Amino acid sequence: MHQPDRVTLREVAPRDGLQNEPPVPAAGKIRLIDALARTGLSRIEAVSFVSPKAVPQMADAAEVWAAVEKHPGIRYSALAPNRRGVERALDAGFTAVEVVVSASETHNRANIGRSVAESLAELPDICAVAKEHLAAVEVIIATSFGCPFEGDVDPGQVARIAEAAEAAGAGRVAFGDTTGMGTPRRVTDLLDAVSTGLPMLMHFHDTRGTALANLLTALDRGVTEFDASVGGIGGCPFAPGASGNVATEEVVHMLHDMGVDTGVDLDALISTAELAQEIVGRPLESGVLRAGPRTRLSPKP
Amino acid sequence: MHQPDRVTLREVAPRDGLQNEPPVPAAGKIRLIDALARTGLSRIEAVSFVSPKAVPQMADAAEVWAAVEKHPGIRYSALAPNRRGVERALDAGFTAVEVVVSASETHNRANIGRSVAESLAELPDICAVAKEHLAAVEVIIATSFGCPFEGDVDPGQVARIAEAAEAAGAGRVAFGDTTGMGTPRRVTDLLDAVSTGLPMLMHFHDTRGTALANLLTALDRGVTEFDASVGGIGGCPFAPGASGNVATEEVVHMLHDMGVDTGVDLDALISTAELAQEIVGRPLESGVLRAGPRTRLSPKP
Repeated sequence: MHQPDRVTLREVAPRDGLQNEPPVPAAGKIRLIDALARTGLSRIEAVSFVSPKAVPQMADAAEVWAAVEKHPGIRYSALAPNRRGVERALDAGFTAVEVVVSASETHNRANIGRSVAESLAELPDICAVAKEHLAAVEVIIATSFGCPFEGDVDPGQVARIAEAAEAAGAGRVAFGDTTGMGTPRRVTDLLDAVSTGLPMLMHFHDTRGTALANLLTALDRGVTEFDASVGGIGGCPFAPGASGNVATEEVVHMLHDMGVDTGVDLDALISTAELAQEIVGRPLESGVLRAGPRTRLSPKP
Repeated sequence: MHQPDRVTLREVAPRDGLQNEPPVPAAGKIRLIDALARTGLSRIEAVSFVSPKAVPQMADAAEVWAAVEKHPGIRYSALAPNRRGVERALDAGFTAVEVVVSASETHNRANIGRSVAESLAELPDICAVAKEHLAAVEVIIATSFGCPFEGDVDPGQVARIAEAAEAAGAGRVAFGDTTGMGTPRRVTDLLDAVSTGLPMLMHFHDTRGTALANLLTALDRGVTEFDASVGGIGGCPFAPGASGNVATEEVVHMLHDMGVDTGVDLDALISTAELAQEIVGRPLESGVLRAGPRTRLSPKP
């Protein structure tokens, strides 16, 4: 199997993670983002600019972002569901924004209240506005590996959205396994279908145990950018009690043992997972958090 | 990546799983084994013959085995730490026994109270006794991917034990990731080192999230036999609260979506995981149990 020398991770706990947990005070979010920034991570999805009615967890996005330490080596990003959210992110000073559109019609309507066509139609405008602010746009394609309402998703449909994103002027595309329906076969099928010149990122959930197997499959196919969430925070919205985002420390732990560099200090990351656990106030699912890394030995009996 | 058409699973929840849980009454064990036998699984590790003082969970092994329905298409096996245990298993009527020896000295002493050399010295006798009973012997090499006391394990040492097993007359060898220290790199290193003519089985734990990535790596290298535990029952003895055995339904769920046959009915298996959860009396970790398979859709909003 092929493996790269280096992988780039984007930490999504502050946004994607906390958006799927009971609301956390701004101070906790700021503390988490600042702790993550000291682990060696080079990308952090910090907040989203969404309707505070629909997503009360992110109502304080501007306040959180204003208070965060801005480390010069880190690319912080904000997610937005539409042009209005992107404008708010740009006004707040973000130079990297993510726009989300689902590969399945039903999920796009449930998630952001409009059709896939409506989302795509807005993309060129969003990219133009971002360009005026010298900001980069990434299009996140949700439900890329399956939809919780519709089931299997046609990889051809994912490919068409990626093409639309590129044509609109986006700088990067991400494939989201929104509810953990991905398997190695789905990763392969998607990569067989997609042909884009844009950098590609994959976002896996560990809802059904397949996250690291999917990541390994993507590595073998040349993908080197992944999302992950410290402590695995952020559950699966369609399966209460089930896990969602793959834990960053599980990704880093496996990759480092394979000799793949991430630039992240695993010990500092595990300490930050402990902080994340304290902030969300429930035991987190991450195996590396619970059992420690493989290098943490037990005393000899 | 290479994948086979078919994989054979051995279900280890009744023995390896329940041995790492608070004791369960014999009736529950019998119910679990009989339910597993109706899912399409072709191999079940039923009980172990060990010291009832050291392992009270298995004190009723003979009673459980006597009461279990014996399905003709299923190979039931019993684990034993030494010749005495093997003789008890043969006396109880088992025709497949597993003998465990660790790749690391400290773990072998902690697990079965003697040196690796002492364990290996007994193997030829054990194989001879089993042969007289027309029974097959499998040697399980514990801590094959790392030792919780000693850390990294030399794959050369694992290879030497596999050779000793073959020379002694064993019919098969299994590599155990006893405390979930395996990663794809460790699987590759082990398979690079081992050269045996015996059929090989791999036993992964999901303690640090790597179980299915390890399995995928082993598949790519031609391994087609794996252990798994329904519901993921059986924790990690060195990390209270952390998960241990990979869940059978997570393995089957991923393999079936990849087009790899296991002979197992996934729905029946998930029902059995629910039964296992009831029997052990705590919420189990299995993602496929908690969230359902990827084909279980949510009602459209």
